[in-house]
Amino acid sequence: MLIKNASLIITQNKRREILRNKDILIEDNIIAKIGRGLKGDDVLDAKNKLVMPGMINLHTHLPLILLRGLSDNKSLFDWANKLFPFEKKFTKEDIFLGTLLSCIEMIKSGTTCSVSEYYFSDVIAKAIKSSGIRGFVSETISDRFSISGKINDALKIAESLLKEYKDDDLIKPFVMFHSLDTCNLETIYRTKELAERYSVLLGTHFMETYKQIKAIKIKYGYSPIEVLEKKGILNENSLGDHIGWLTDKDLNLIRRRNVKLVHCPVSNAKLMNDGFQTVSNVLNKKILLGLGTDSPASNNSLDLFEEMKSCILMERIRMIGSNTIFRGPINAQNLLNMVTINAAKILKLNTGSIELGKKADLVLLDMKSSQLHPLIDVISNIVYSCNSSCVSDVICNGKIIMKEREILTFDEEKVINKIEKKKYF
Amino acid sequence: MLIKNASLIITQNKRREILRNKDILIEDNIIAKIGRGLKGDDVLDAKNKLVMPGMINLHTHLPLILLRGLSDNKSLFDWANKLFPFEKKFTKEDIFLGTLLSCIEMIKSGTTCSVSEYYFSDVIAKAIKSSGIRGFVSETISDRFSISGKINDALKIAESLLKEYKDDDLIKPFVMFHSLDTCNLETIYRTKELAERYSVLLGTHFMETYKQIKAIKIKYGYSPIEVLEKKGILNENSLGDHIGWLTDKDLNLIRRRNVKLVHCPVSNAKLMNDGFQTVSNVLNKKILLGLGTDSPASNNSLDLFEEMKSCILMERIRMIGSNTIFRGPINAQNLLNMVTINAAKILKLNTGSIELGKKADLVLLDMKSSQLHPLIDVISNIVYSCNSSCVSDVICNGKIIMKEREILTFDEEKVINKIEKKKYF
Repeated sequence: MLIKNASLIITQNKRREILRNKDILIEDNIIAKIGRGLKGDDVLDAKNKLVMPGMINLHTHLPLILLRGLSDNKSLFDWANKLFPFEKKFTKEDIFLGTLLSCIEMIKSGTTCSVSEYYFSDVIAKAIKSSGIRGFVSETISDRFSISGKINDALKIAESLLKEYKDDDLIKPFVMFHSLDTCNLETIYRTKELAERYSVLLGTHFMETYKQIKAIKIKYGYSPIEVLEKKGILNENSLGDHIGWLTDKDLNLIRRRNVKLVHCPVSNAKLMNDGFQTVSNVLNKKILLGLGTDSPASNNSLDLFEEMKSCILMERIRMIGSNTIFRGPINAQNLLNMVTINAAKILKLNTGSIELGKKADLVLLDMKSSQLHPLIDVISNIVYSCNSSCVSDVICNGKIIMKEREILTFDEEKVINKIEKKKYF
Repeated sequence: MLIKNASLIITQNKRREILRNKDILIEDNIIAKIGRGLKGDDVLDAKNKLVMPGMINLHTHLPLILLRGLSDNKSLFDWANKLFPFEKKFTKEDIFLGTLLSCIEMIKSGTTCSVSEYYFSDVIAKAIKSSGIRGFVSETISDRFSISGKINDALKIAESLLKEYKDDDLIKPFVMFHSLDTCNLETIYRTKELAERYSVLLGTHFMETYKQIKAIKIKYGYSPIEVLEKKGILNENSLGDHIGWLTDKDLNLIRRRNVKLVHCPVSNAKLMNDGFQTVSNVLNKKILLGLGTDSPASNNSLDLFEEMKSCILMERIRMIGSNTIFRGPINAQNLLNMVTINAAKILKLNTGSIELGKKADLVLLDMKSSQLHPLIDVISNIVYSCNSSCVSDVICNGKIIMKEREILTFDEEKVINKIEKKKYF
């Protein structure tokens, strides 16, 4: 495919170059050439378009979109308790449809890869694959929240997923234990063993509420991060979600073990479980940090434009009265890094920037969108002014997934109609 | 005009009714009938559309969109100082184009009325009028920030605007003194006299930063609200922007004088000038409160969907550690009220709800948007999940302004091209 005459290319390469009026030649799924006057088949006219790397949502639970709006004004545990009876009734078809509804929302807001944990991960993998975008998928491993109630069953599903998608280009299975709060140490060790055996990421929810942290301290005598560190769980393949309550001591351990972090500002705020740790502090410690929307039932969106802007707004609210804020490293460029190149580094994906040899996961924004003007600072416009309405086309793994806002890989209207007929609530 | 077979109508009437599969007949600019099987000309097919009241942005400075992205990581005064040399160079044509660029963004995000203060208010009024939406427009009155430097000139412009648009259906001139910080008392009295003589709103920026409040306390011995109250400035026609640093004592004065308030959560957070006062507390005191984006150079958007969601997220961040949050009155319905019916009440506009006799300011959302599904709680979906990409059509004062995302009243591409050619920076 040849992307012809792109008005702007936000490369996100090391020099963060922005190119003007250039072509991108994609051979198979790889960016083969960037330049002027390139020749190739399957021309996509990108005049009046901006091309940027596809965005990566590092933490979500996709099928829960089926319950968004059901439980809005509650704190984390009351929210989850309200959802649970409905979740228990989900069929495989529900999971498939819910995942596809989430895919519509991700594609339309420029997301080409998500990291999702939930039950029925085999069904989720199939749905994401059929949508044409990338998905890191894990089965929920938890002593407390398991649907079938049996850890062995969950581990079996996790392992069969690891086998089935071992060499898949789009679906990357990984392993996740739900949290130190909901898993005993034996479960965590078994999960870790599985991750190591298949050389995949080991994810977990670092604590979401202060109450959880206090409970862990009473049970183990240490903070959750300290416990995980002492038990040998943390290493460079660890991915920890939710940063709100991490102490500076925790961050130092995280840095030492080269653990990667995911911040979910919107969901944390909406569920009232955010803490006092700042993004600026995490970035200052040179810890790799990305963004996630968390569940679309708590967020209630899957929109990384919104997540980037919310991230900095909430950081500033959190720092009212402090004089440090404008010296902190959080700005539009850093926010864009979090959802592109840094997220790709966390996942060890060969995407996240527009460079030769990278896989072609690209998003085109319509330069006719008012949000991109005036063009004083295009990165500022992308992060602080654009939203999903600016996204015109999406390419994933070298294939066009959405053209002029029409999804090509599946019938979005059919998915929505089927969901509305089912009435889950 | 006949809006035929709307899938959902969010009336925002007293009972907050939501109607299904009904028609809306508009005669001239008024909602004349709501029912099934209505007859009429100029049929707009609203099958698979949701109809809601057009939204009202209660505080902004529209032409400043020309400088968005120029001054992102600064606190209020540094931000303003960076803009000022560029603002001084603005020509009338710049102001006209900038206002139209802002109109594009407002129309596409479902806003049919804005309240804007800036210089060249005569030009702003003309631009808004040509876009077809409503505008409350005021000339900046300030001893410190005046462009010409002369209060008499500014008051003359303000008065000529009051005369010219006295009976206009779309443009409503009002009067605003910039703030107690930037105007001496004589200027404030003259501004108030003008507002009273023409029976219009008297707006002002209540203090934006804590530093300003301290300066006022040193100068006058009281908080800004107390000073304005003691000097007889506050009454039911007063509109105060920015609520962050208001004390409970201030709120009680505001309540007693029936003053109306405007909260600008995104801009306050981004400029790091938000305080500790909560929206829940303001609502609990039964003070009429609406939302504004503030300047598109600080926000950097003009999107009330974003403003509603950000409002509640920041409220919750602000209340970390408090147990009161989920008992507070802030929720999706209240947020929608702030940008529709309550905003209309503040402006004494006969809009903000879909009821017989109201002026037809309506926004249609495309029910094919994933953000509106599942339909568990449509108000939640509008406030927490939808964004401007869901807006398909906009009607203002009984006329179609945008149809299937194409603005009909002016050439948006031409506006953007002209602005990009000028290069203001």
